[in-house]
Amino acid sequence: MAQQHLDPTDPTAGPAPTGDALAGYLRAQATEFLRALRLHRETGPAASNGTEESVDAARALRRSVRRISGSMHTFRPLLEADWSEGLRPELAWLSGTLSMENAYACRLERLLLALHRLSGAVFPTQTGMAAAVSPAGATAGPPAPPPTDRGNLTVGAAKAGALLERQLTLARTRAHSTALQALGSSRFHAVADKVAVLASEVPLTATATAPTTDLRPLAAAAEERLTDAVTALPLVTAGSPYNAEALIHGLSPDPSPHPQDAPWHQVRLLLRLHRYAREALYGTGGPIDVRLLTAGQALDRHRDASEAAAAAASAARTPRIAPATAYALGVLHADQRHEVEAARFAFQQSWQKQVVST
Amino acid sequence: MAQQHLDPTDPTAGPAPTGDALAGYLRAQATEFLRALRLHRETGPAASNGTEESVDAARALRRSVRRISGSMHTFRPLLEADWSEGLRPELAWLSGTLSMENAYACRLERLLLALHRLSGAVFPTQTGMAAAVSPAGATAGPPAPPPTDRGNLTVGAAKAGALLERQLTLARTRAHSTALQALGSSRFHAVADKVAVLASEVPLTATATAPTTDLRPLAAAAEERLTDAVTALPLVTAGSPYNAEALIHGLSPDPSPHPQDAPWHQVRLLLRLHRYAREALYGTGGPIDVRLLTAGQALDRHRDASEAAAAAASAARTPRIAPATAYALGVLHADQRHEVEAARFAFQQSWQKQVVST
Repeated sequence: MAQQHLDPTDPTAGPAPTGDALAGYLRAQATEFLRALRLHRETGPAASNGTEESVDAARALRRSVRRISGSMHTFRPLLEADWSEGLRPELAWLSGTLSMENAYACRLERLLLALHRLSGAVFPTQTGMAAAVSPAGATAGPPAPPPTDRGNLTVGAAKAGALLERQLTLARTRAHSTALQALGSSRFHAVADKVAVLASEVPLTATATAPTTDLRPLAAAAEERLTDAVTALPLVTAGSPYNAEALIHGLSPDPSPHPQDAPWHQVRLLLRLHRYAREALYGTGGPIDVRLLTAGQALDRHRDASEAAAAAASAARTPRIAPATAYALGVLHADQRHEVEAARFAFQQSWQKQVVST
Repeated sequence: MAQQHLDPTDPTAGPAPTGDALAGYLRAQATEFLRALRLHRETGPAASNGTEESVDAARALRRSVRRISGSMHTFRPLLEADWSEGLRPELAWLSGTLSMENAYACRLERLLLALHRLSGAVFPTQTGMAAAVSPAGATAGPPAPPPTDRGNLTVGAAKAGALLERQLTLARTRAHSTALQALGSSRFHAVADKVAVLASEVPLTATATAPTTDLRPLAAAAEERLTDAVTALPLVTAGSPYNAEALIHGLSPDPSPHPQDAPWHQVRLLLRLHRYAREALYGTGGPIDVRLLTAGQALDRHRDASEAAAAAASAARTPRIAPATAYALGVLHADQRHEVEAARFAFQQSWQKQVVST
């Protein structure tokens, strides 16, 4: 709702988008999936390291899967039920499987950068890190460790960095194998076949093919789910800087100490669905809503920091670590929880702007 | 300067304050010192625990010492040089000695409250803590440990709390003995005698007694030293929330990792001198400048959090502690460094208001 009267170049001003627009969008995303898959096969598993092309291919694959899956969710009543119900869980499986390797790599990079920042050291070769972030299928061998310059760190920070590197690299290697296995499985081939069909023929219902069917009510419902979820967030607290909310329960005996993050993660997903619905209605070539983008980036940062904080806390529970290592992991955990708080503040600011300017 | 045109009830609107005003202020503060000292002797060392009166007496003693010492600094050219040079270092010694016990008690309280907050536990008996914060000379025996409810804490947080309690209580007990010894020393009696003289006769120079001598240029110079020091602070950074500046060097190998705090501590002292100079000029009964008060409170919080963070880091260097203890101390350290950052933000906000509204 909030976005409908914002822009002089308002894409909503045209005729009502119908089932044709949805079909066009899904076909385009399916085509993109097939293109990325082909590129991925050409550059992927066989290559000995993560080239730029294979990174791009893996990212494009994840992007298209998310968009197909999201649109199927938002516009479910317009798509054939049997086909939908069969494909959606498979896309969720694929999306989850393909994203893990990259997630572990990014988490490690984030934590090592934070350790260096906390040590007052400039990270030696920021560009060197990029190579370590290779996508699923890009490299079969064990990934090269990031070039951490231990000379600048205290013993505790260096040991904490080494421990995180060990644990997250192991997790990443496993995720890599899992993704490789998945991409070679018959389960994946079945998904790819279905997406190939989607690229030429979208299974719309009879209602959807009627020329009078308007996509907007379903897109508006998706937006409403988003605004409802945002309304339920503690935005007043988040908008007051240094509220020290995110670190509450930082030392809680509760093994899952951050249920407070869940509503924010939920908003992140709903914001994404809203963005994809806008793309389906008005095309991907239209003007980008910068504020939606900013809000989404804040929530991505929220999620990343939340998971990085959990990884630091989990590493601290490794048996027989030195107290100096545990201390550094404690500082790191708290630092990432403050990143969580900072991300909430950033989201609140961008969202506030959105509401004010409508 | 900034304050001179703010208030319709502007105290600066009257006739120029002269040496008489300074003499009156110093006499009043000296009288207050003697009153507090008498009260302290009546309620103090003999009492078995820190009563409210003895806490008040110790606080009043510190207050008057700070004010006499500060005024002697700001208005030095108007006071007899020999007398000044003899008394000022003695007051600094006394002020330092008397403040330590209270500082350790407050630091422990701050850290235990933070540990409880970080554990998501409500502090069981906040009022119970007050008894633990006893002033110099109030209690001769070992202070009772604060009633921490360990049941709500993880093992690490509970152990960290116990370690801090042990270390800071020991430091506080030592400070208590030192203060007691100081108050019984001939060095202290010499200071008290000099202050007793001051209560009846302020040793002003010939210039100061001239009816045309204006106190305001010296007070303005004190204010200028303050505003210069504030200008040198990184206020732009401080005004941008979650700048993550205060935790830089949080894991630095440098044993004195927070030189960034020093300019803020310096501004805190200069702000206090400015406040005392205003009191000397316009009396203590005049309207209180709320913004100066707010800015001063932010800087007090900055100092307290900075020292609490250092205490947590120092406790983490205790040999043979458990990793869980060290982890909790790391989280605690980072939490207090974020308090430092939050205090800088609060100072920036209150100072900005001051500048804007003039």
